[in-house]
Amino acid sequence: MSFRAYAAPAAGKELEPIQLERPSELGPFDVEILVECCGICHSDIHLIDNDWRISSYPLIPGHEVVGKIVRKGALVQNVKEGDRVGVGWQCASCLACEWCERGEEPACDHHVATCVGRPGGYAEYLIADSRFAFPIPEALPSESAAPLLCGGITVFTPLSRFASPSDRVGVIGIGGLGHLALQFARAMGCEVTAFSTSPSKEAEAKRLGAHHFVVSTDEKAMKALANSFDLILSTVTADLNWPMWLSLVRKHGRLQLVGASPGNISVPVMQLVGGQKTISGTIIGGRAGIRKMLAFAARHGVRAQAEVLPLDRVNEAVARVRANQARYRMVLKVQ
Amino acid sequence: MSFRAYAAPAAGKELEPIQLERPSELGPFDVEILVECCGICHSDIHLIDNDWRISSYPLIPGHEVVGKIVRKGALVQNVKEGDRVGVGWQCASCLACEWCERGEEPACDHHVATCVGRPGGYAEYLIADSRFAFPIPEALPSESAAPLLCGGITVFTPLSRFASPSDRVGVIGIGGLGHLALQFARAMGCEVTAFSTSPSKEAEAKRLGAHHFVVSTDEKAMKALANSFDLILSTVTADLNWPMWLSLVRKHGRLQLVGASPGNISVPVMQLVGGQKTISGTIIGGRAGIRKMLAFAARHGVRAQAEVLPLDRVNEAVARVRANQARYRMVLKVQ
Repeated sequence: MSFRAYAAPAAGKELEPIQLERPSELGPFDVEILVECCGICHSDIHLIDNDWRISSYPLIPGHEVVGKIVRKGALVQNVKEGDRVGVGWQCASCLACEWCERGEEPACDHHVATCVGRPGGYAEYLIADSRFAFPIPEALPSESAAPLLCGGITVFTPLSRFASPSDRVGVIGIGGLGHLALQFARAMGCEVTAFSTSPSKEAEAKRLGAHHFVVSTDEKAMKALANSFDLILSTVTADLNWPMWLSLVRKHGRLQLVGASPGNISVPVMQLVGGQKTISGTIIGGRAGIRKMLAFAARHGVRAQAEVLPLDRVNEAVARVRANQARYRMVLKVQ
Repeated sequence: MSFRAYAAPAAGKELEPIQLERPSELGPFDVEILVECCGICHSDIHLIDNDWRISSYPLIPGHEVVGKIVRKGALVQNVKEGDRVGVGWQCASCLACEWCERGEEPACDHHVATCVGRPGGYAEYLIADSRFAFPIPEALPSESAAPLLCGGITVFTPLSRFASPSDRVGVIGIGGLGHLALQFARAMGCEVTAFSTSPSKEAEAKRLGAHHFVVSTDEKAMKALANSFDLILSTVTADLNWPMWLSLVRKHGRLQLVGASPGNISVPVMQLVGGQKTISGTIIGGRAGIRKMLAFAARHGVRAQAEVLPLDRVNEAVARVRANQARYRMVLKVQ
């Protein structure tokens, strides 16, 4: 039986509908998911454009998937047909190495990405390892849960690891990741500042949880915040003025990067040593972290703000992401 | 009553003997210490040369002091005349701010440095706040204890904070700090690798605790160590090839800087984010940390390897430090 998916035929091209065959048999630990919706992450754009030189075509993007399990492999025990589950960037790992043992599956050398070298979630069906399919708490609507699977866990990992409830936390960039970071940090009890180059985002940033909003091009406002933050989380993929951002971090504080900026981060050693500061990076999160994140989001009303379009308008949705017009996450409605 | 000290009369000059007066009265929390010996730290050279633009002349260096308390202020309770104590880089702080409350006195805005704007330990007597004078465990000879007060705590702080006993730890630079780091890391149970540009240091590095010795200019040996270390501690003040060193750190690992390199540290953001790595800096350590470090050193036989010269040969000793000839710490014998 065939199903519909959308694929980029070559690097940078618009997506086109294609037909794929459902496999007659599943791997022993795999599940087949009837996709309900799928978020559009910036990583999808990087894959479409082959920015990371890991793409193969036709390329079916999509790694923020929510849907219902319709079939499962012979050895699947943790989920069953009919369960509503989510799948994020990672859809399998070896489950036997040090990293998997430590709950750091994203570091596994046998890490399998949901839409790299295999069809992703811009499609009616998706296959994933059942151990990477996470039941979605009932309180979370599918459209606002899908972006949590990649964007959400990407910011939840460093916030849950590094932010104390009494901390002052700054979030750089109020987009797909940032608008979730504001909600998570607020719910964790932090004092939250949103940094954006767009003054128009102030009201929404505050509604999403920011106590303060700062236009990051306002030099005077920025200078006044020197040595203020315990944690600054950069969610953007641009190359920023890193010494300036590090100067806003207070002693013993941390500048945390989760965005894939293409260039170098360069700061004076004395700024790092004298201020006893830290610069670090993380990617997505392990399975236990994703479960915690989903439960936390359900409990605290953390919701991705989704602009929903049907799957056949995928190129329009992608164009809005490319133009930074999404407020704040484009989500494709498949079923 | 006057006493003898050695002072740089101007930036970069040789030290000359001068006479200072002992104060008739001490501050309520101060102690006067009859200096037994004082280590020569690279920071003393930076102060002599006014590299940090904080020096005033005549400048009496010295902040790795061990001696006996001969007099104490009216409110001193924690130490008494006759006690053998050590004083490091920091000799006072406000003891009332957040950082002092947290045991992070080096971050205190009212941090007072032992030999900045006041006479240091290249002298027969030293005045310090009693709360920054630490009893030296009996097992530690004064000459091998003095360098622990600055060099020792500088490497003990990050090792005790970030190294687990099962970690693989690399130490860059086998000098005043590095030769102590090897001993501490070994005593903490880590697998220890010494990195040096001097092949001649191999035998001593291994005697000091290194399991492995690598000549850091040996490109082949370095490449073979890619993604090997949980923690790499740089003790040098040179500007290194930081992306290369970060490539030796494994996933979730840390590159830790304690040396005051003058330039920038610049690494690809993708190396930091993709590898989930951390770069951080620390300076010296708080009071509780210094006490722990001294007890740990006494218990585990950690000893600074001192080349001892009498105080009046201070210029010869400084010249050996400038020429990187000290093996591994010059210590001035005062009494």
